[in-house]
Amino acid sequence: MMTDKPPLVPPGGTIGILGGGQLGRMLALAAADLGIKACIFANDPQSPAFDVAGAQVCAQFDDLAAIEDFAAQVDVATFEFENIPTQTLTEIAKTKPVLPDASVLQITNDRVLEKQFINEQNIATARYWPIDNLVALESALNETGGTGIMKTRRFGYDGKGQVRIKRLEDAAKNWADIGESPAILEEIIPFDREISVVLARRHNGETAIYDPSENHHENHILSTTTVPAKLGNETMERAIEIAIKIADALDYIGVLAVELFVETIGTREHLRVNEIAPRVHNSGHWTMDGALTSQFEQHIRSVCGWPLGAVDRSHDVIMTNLIGNDVDRWAEFANTPDTRLHLYGKREPRPGRKMGHVTQITPRADKR
Amino acid sequence: MMTDKPPLVPPGGTIGILGGGQLGRMLALAAADLGIKACIFANDPQSPAFDVAGAQVCAQFDDLAAIEDFAAQVDVATFEFENIPTQTLTEIAKTKPVLPDASVLQITNDRVLEKQFINEQNIATARYWPIDNLVALESALNETGGTGIMKTRRFGYDGKGQVRIKRLEDAAKNWADIGESPAILEEIIPFDREISVVLARRHNGETAIYDPSENHHENHILSTTTVPAKLGNETMERAIEIAIKIADALDYIGVLAVELFVETIGTREHLRVNEIAPRVHNSGHWTMDGALTSQFEQHIRSVCGWPLGAVDRSHDVIMTNLIGNDVDRWAEFANTPDTRLHLYGKREPRPGRKMGHVTQITPRADKR
Repeated sequence: MMTDKPPLVPPGGTIGILGGGQLGRMLALAAADLGIKACIFANDPQSPAFDVAGAQVCAQFDDLAAIEDFAAQVDVATFEFENIPTQTLTEIAKTKPVLPDASVLQITNDRVLEKQFINEQNIATARYWPIDNLVALESALNETGGTGIMKTRRFGYDGKGQVRIKRLEDAAKNWADIGESPAILEEIIPFDREISVVLARRHNGETAIYDPSENHHENHILSTTTVPAKLGNETMERAIEIAIKIADALDYIGVLAVELFVETIGTREHLRVNEIAPRVHNSGHWTMDGALTSQFEQHIRSVCGWPLGAVDRSHDVIMTNLIGNDVDRWAEFANTPDTRLHLYGKREPRPGRKMGHVTQITPRADKR
Repeated sequence: MMTDKPPLVPPGGTIGILGGGQLGRMLALAAADLGIKACIFANDPQSPAFDVAGAQVCAQFDDLAAIEDFAAQVDVATFEFENIPTQTLTEIAKTKPVLPDASVLQITNDRVLEKQFINEQNIATARYWPIDNLVALESALNETGGTGIMKTRRFGYDGKGQVRIKRLEDAAKNWADIGESPAILEEIIPFDREISVVLARRHNGETAIYDPSENHHENHILSTTTVPAKLGNETMERAIEIAIKIADALDYIGVLAVELFVETIGTREHLRVNEIAPRVHNSGHWTMDGALTSQFEQHIRSVCGWPLGAVDRSHDVIMTNLIGNDVDRWAEFANTPDTRLHLYGKREPRPGRKMGHVTQITPRADKR
């Protein structure tokens, strides 16, 4: 029984989702399975989430009249991507709860504030320097020995808005490359692996944490996620502790993904947080086929004020993104044993575009 | 690779679904996960399937203009319930494939033709008599000893349109009860259990069969399905053989459910087919949580010309329907370990109305 608090959204209610991509689509599908309606707000009439939602608002994210219309239709609002104008969220919040809270985005949407916040929790990140001009960049590069990853402070994803600096002499060129916009320089971490922890947190502080996964990128885009990550037990526990600490510090509600670098020094695995995603995350897609409750259902549950679902992992899973023309192989994947195919209903397979994903599921090695 | 035939509906295509109830809704959700759009045809503007489909036609099933409009929007059409006017299907079939074929419905929609067809395959049913008037009823009751189940030949479901006859003297009253419409009298089978076999069959004759389940009804409505059914191996195999024989004889495409009575005589389990459902079936809902491919995805795959998915059972499952006000307990179910909740988004919990279902999943007893 839910004796703690009546749910924000009971069955029959409506969750509003800002963003109409594959994450919004999979959230809407998960909501449907719980008898909750979805209203999608997106600016592209061909948004894949529109195809699976009973209600939709197609408008720009700064169209205040459209936003009011959206807010009027929903019981609670959430989002599938971060780069939503703050004013949009503030406007919705005047009449309906927005979860996770807009204040979280103010931190995670700025790479400098995000790292600052993480360090304030006594959690390690790469060393970093805010970069506002060429002088600041050159000064920072003097400290790193001339190398680093420079990223715009805001609006970057899938490797967009970032450049790898190889030597001090390239500073001016690289500063121009990034459009001379407010940036961050991050020290290059010689990590062996990147992992992520996906968790859900409720309004009462209760959390449910999926097993950490190991992520492999190609061309700055997530290519595969393998679960369980090959980590020592102690490292696994530390990664989970870090993720919970961050979620607690944000008083977070919903699904949160924390990406970490694993750097092996001697026999010890060091962890540093790379970034936080205040939403369902590509590295959590494996949960659709390998856990009792998917990350999408879990986000719906936490945002709607339902009890969290069980996160027990039923299988070992390798999730592979279908990017661009990879999707042409759909029939082969549909016909491969122990493989589950998920397609996003996107019209055109443009290069770099996430068109779907497949999971290869096998019995848990630790229970065989 | 699908070298046999190009699929009728590739990703990005549209499946048309006649009927907007929970089965149509779960079919649309399964289609979405494969990147296939759904267009729902239903006559009730509050049809739960409308909430999850990108396209819809809301009209009566005999509205030929609306049917043409629907046919123009889809690549293939299927149905979630049987009582669709033949002319509707014929009209659609002029321009688009209808699967399973309309000829199947002509058999399964008439309880006399259905039993006749089954017996022609050398498969046992209850003894039965077509009833067109009181004289025929009295004559049949003389053969059974005065008892039997009388059902209308057409349009019956969930116990509607049927009456249990207890003695010959009630014949006239019972004949009036059933509206003096064409009927069938079935001998009462002293069965111990009712099971069902759900299978999928492709255009090339390939089949995939789920483990038989055991069904328990209350007030003529399915209450629980338990899988695996408690059956001897030999009985299990015979039940599967029977189901395949029926699917083959119908040259069936799609998901088919065959309900059977199990009658134990001495140590032997006798099987008789009760009825055939040419569609996804309530007794197959357990597959959403207990099999690699759900019956809904399987139906989409077979009707769209895709390879069939794997039907391996991952868990033991007890599926319980939430009927009428049972759904008020949703929060309790959402919070029960090893339990998955599925709600259908229906507005009003009327008595006898299927509002959702829950599955209780446990590790397979045979693999523990």
